[in-house]
Amino acid sequence: MDGVVTRKAQKDDCASVMDLIQEFAKYDPDGPKICQKTLEEDGFGKDPAFHCFVALQESKVIGYAISYLSYSTWEGRSIVLEDLYVQPSYQGIGIGSALLKEVTQYGLDLGCSRVNFYSLKSNYTALAFYKAKGAINLTEAEGWDLFEMNKKVMGQFIRE
Amino acid sequence: MDGVVTRKAQKDDCASVMDLIQEFAKYDPDGPKICQKTLEEDGFGKDPAFHCFVALQESKVIGYAISYLSYSTWEGRSIVLEDLYVQPSYQGIGIGSALLKEVTQYGLDLGCSRVNFYSLKSNYTALAFYKAKGAINLTEAEGWDLFEMNKKVMGQFIRE
Repeated sequence: MDGVVTRKAQKDDCASVMDLIQEFAKYDPDGPKICQKTLEEDGFGKDPAFHCFVALQESKVIGYAISYLSYSTWEGRSIVLEDLYVQPSYQGIGIGSALLKEVTQYGLDLGCSRVNFYSLKSNYTALAFYKAKGAINLTEAEGWDLFEMNKKVMGQFIRE
Repeated sequence: MDGVVTRKAQKDDCASVMDLIQEFAKYDPDGPKICQKTLEEDGFGKDPAFHCFVALQESKVIGYAISYLSYSTWEGRSIVLEDLYVQPSYQGIGIGSALLKEVTQYGLDLGCSRVNFYSLKSNYTALAFYKAKGAINLTEAEGWDLFEMNKKVMGQFIRE
């Protein structure tokens, strides 16, 4: 990780982070529907919806982590890791760990009891990374499945 | 649902909501580790960590829904339903739907693109309820698993 630093993201980083979000999502034809402006408004205005950390080499953003605060009626404040991405040519040298440590420390500072995240069960690289950090697969261990009502379903349900 | 109303919870409801959280969790010997005071501080102070809606019959709290705002780098602001509970003797008459509508409308008002939640795959009653509302199981449909680093793991990881 020589020459690589991690820090809290600033509004000025949003263009670079948006590029990496697109890069991270390249495997999916649907792609992210948000843009740089959304990211700036949602993360760096009043009541930010997420917190972002970036990894830089010589001022170039080469990785990011996005998290938000969540809540458990069992353990109180907790934190969710929404995205963790390091550009392929910089992977394997500890930058992902450094970004995850930023998120974890941030969560501990705010009194969070746990870090949660989702991963595709087919993403073996990610699964090995998280397992090495001590994360447990709660879907396998306890049977927790993830559900979603999308915006169309939300609208239909409200009008029922 | 004759005589039952739903509304946003107030700080004064926390004792009743805490009783219902305990009741909801009775199947698990570990039980919730938070208390009424935590609930009051986390939900009704500065920067609330969650939003709660309650169902009442003749001023008695008989159900609750707890949600928090989340974020997706694909679709922006979204909302998570953390808990939805109606006392057994009041189930089956639409109170759960009314509480879920409160959460859904709240999410729509804030520009959320989706409602997410976890459910135990063994909780067939809950699964039938959510399926009837149009929710999709993303673990089954796309392979998303839920992971967790607990507080002990967080501390160990930071010190690595």
